[in-house]
Amino acid sequence: MSMENKIPKPIRCKAAVCRGPGEALRIEEVVVAPPEDHEVRIKILCTSLCHSDLTFWRMKDFPGIFPRIFGHEAVGVVESVGGHVERLEAGDMVVPTFLGQCDATEDACVDCRSERSNMCSKLPFTVTPGMPRSHGGAASRFTDAAGRPVHHFLNVSSFSEYTVVDAAHVVRVDPTVPPEKACLLSCGASTGVGAAGKVAGVEAGSTVAIFGLGAVGLAVAEGARIRGASRIIGVDLNPDKFELGKKFGLTDFINPKELGDRSINEVIIEMTNGGADYCFECIGLASVMKDAFQSSRQGWGKTIILGVEMHGAPLCVAAGEILWGKCIMGSLFGGIKPKIDIPIFVKQYLNKELQLDEFITHEIGFEDINKAFDLLVEGKSLRCTIWMDK
Amino acid sequence: MSMENKIPKPIRCKAAVCRGPGEALRIEEVVVAPPEDHEVRIKILCTSLCHSDLTFWRMKDFPGIFPRIFGHEAVGVVESVGGHVERLEAGDMVVPTFLGQCDATEDACVDCRSERSNMCSKLPFTVTPGMPRSHGGAASRFTDAAGRPVHHFLNVSSFSEYTVVDAAHVVRVDPTVPPEKACLLSCGASTGVGAAGKVAGVEAGSTVAIFGLGAVGLAVAEGARIRGASRIIGVDLNPDKFELGKKFGLTDFINPKELGDRSINEVIIEMTNGGADYCFECIGLASVMKDAFQSSRQGWGKTIILGVEMHGAPLCVAAGEILWGKCIMGSLFGGIKPKIDIPIFVKQYLNKELQLDEFITHEIGFEDINKAFDLLVEGKSLRCTIWMDK
Repeated sequence: MSMENKIPKPIRCKAAVCRGPGEALRIEEVVVAPPEDHEVRIKILCTSLCHSDLTFWRMKDFPGIFPRIFGHEAVGVVESVGGHVERLEAGDMVVPTFLGQCDATEDACVDCRSERSNMCSKLPFTVTPGMPRSHGGAASRFTDAAGRPVHHFLNVSSFSEYTVVDAAHVVRVDPTVPPEKACLLSCGASTGVGAAGKVAGVEAGSTVAIFGLGAVGLAVAEGARIRGASRIIGVDLNPDKFELGKKFGLTDFINPKELGDRSINEVIIEMTNGGADYCFECIGLASVMKDAFQSSRQGWGKTIILGVEMHGAPLCVAAGEILWGKCIMGSLFGGIKPKIDIPIFVKQYLNKELQLDEFITHEIGFEDINKAFDLLVEGKSLRCTIWMDK
Repeated sequence: MSMENKIPKPIRCKAAVCRGPGEALRIEEVVVAPPEDHEVRIKILCTSLCHSDLTFWRMKDFPGIFPRIFGHEAVGVVESVGGHVERLEAGDMVVPTFLGQCDATEDACVDCRSERSNMCSKLPFTVTPGMPRSHGGAASRFTDAAGRPVHHFLNVSSFSEYTVVDAAHVVRVDPTVPPEKACLLSCGASTGVGAAGKVAGVEAGSTVAIFGLGAVGLAVAEGARIRGASRIIGVDLNPDKFELGKKFGLTDFINPKELGDRSINEVIIEMTNGGADYCFECIGLASVMKDAFQSSRQGWGKTIILGVEMHGAPLCVAAGEILWGKCIMGSLFGGIKPKIDIPIFVKQYLNKELQLDEFITHEIGFEDINKAFDLLVEGKSLRCTIWMDK
């Protein structure tokens, strides 16, 4: 760290601010405060849009709150660090993550010390605005032109040239990785690949069914492909997803609209001679969670829930059916520990073991950020890279 | 096998026949046909009553069917064997089991070959009457005095001096084990001990909450105690269960009636500093399944469903809550493979590692079998040994 960074100053820069639910973002000038203790300020290189951004962008009630700077899938370079920050310094290429991990920054919590959990209990995940250590307060490091605070989003807020992130939410990555590829590992790709490997433990020769072939669902396919699954069945209403999915190892495709009188679980049970070993729900609909469960094999079938139920409906299954040796599990961020697993994924990408290029369907400049919303809402993009300097 | 056993003859003996839903059993004379191919005929030594007997005893509609010979927790001696029976012969002390396992009797199915499943797919478990290989037909080896068939129950029908059971449902055990102890391993004790070990994988130092302290719930405690759980919390409406449960390792007790305004999950989360590592539902109520789930720890908490939902209600939980690293799983027979695991439990009992004696609260003679029903219905017994020769 150079001397002049020791006392960082506020930075005036451009950010895409959203001032009301569902409203187009506006590029505004904001002031980004210096990082406080345990925080780093990051110059964003590129960012992308994920469905969770859309969910909170549309949200009219708390924790939907405005004005806000969205964005939580990104990559950048550390510009300056606050006090008590270890193992991160200005110039580091980093991936910010919505989920924190305290063990690389300080005495680890019981969750970060355990191999079984990725739910840091020192800095528990929350969707309410604020910095992780602000203890429920809506602390912000952003101020708009009128001097009013602008809310953070999911601990990242990457739709800004600069952002301040807690060091527990920052992963240093190999600087030789192309930034737009590292960006994908900040949320969606890691979630899917992690779920197949760390949560489900898909093994060679197993059968996998994936409900919903967005970026997360296709990343599940990629994770299952890497682990040698013999059959990877994709389920989606959009028939174009089969060709796209083949790149990620999809062997079969089911369009639920084309089944006539047959149920999806009937078809999958027949295709797999009893049900898939692993069924992943990547949409966020309780009815699809039930379909996934019913499509899983008795004896050892696992249903892995990745989607956030979009209408608040409960997850319901037949109580008797779970007795037949079935299991339902869920995870945030594919069960990965960001600081441990993202660097592994970067290495796998650089070794050409993990495919990421195919997730990027569009690239635009920061000024055109609303186009990324249109593309995702219309289902036209998997990931649209938003370059801050273009 | 002696020569005279080679062509077994029908046996005339006493059986406790139930002729209508909820009706008292009547000791009648029945004829037990010789075992057919893949079957053995067993002289029952003792049997006991399990809640599943009560469920089907009360059942007015199919698969509730009458006249029927109930009983599925028992021990006996092989009297004769049919064709194609391997590794079992007259004189063997055996435990019959409602769940089959084909791998010790013939070419194993994929489930019996897998370590992950105990759901034999060659002879799939069903609650409909009949012999396992009768393919849905209500074949019976029992005939009453009027020459009419009497239905089997859960592949065992042990409320008879003699019964015919498929060899896949018969486990040979060490003949030095006291029969009334081996009897417990035929269903309830194996289910609970198996669930703690094989399904949940409880490990040393972990926290366990058990909802419902019948024989299965207390066997879960015993299984958790053996595996070194540091805290075993029992939940039951009957306060007497705490003293009883202490013998099986119970360290804490919660009576849901005495919580006032607090919810059971609030209390367990506070007691365990975040939730129990393993929560077992041993009653069969969807509302308790939800309580158990909510009492499990985020990050790695597992909820294990053992109870058969008694009103057909679905298992429902908050879809968002499972994303916090939680898991719900279920099993029949505690995930055990009968022919592999029951002999292990017998050995553990003989080595004084596994406690079984305390499950037996009552002993009666066969003629008094209806008393066993009264005791279980009134919640006065854990297990009542019913001796056939007393």
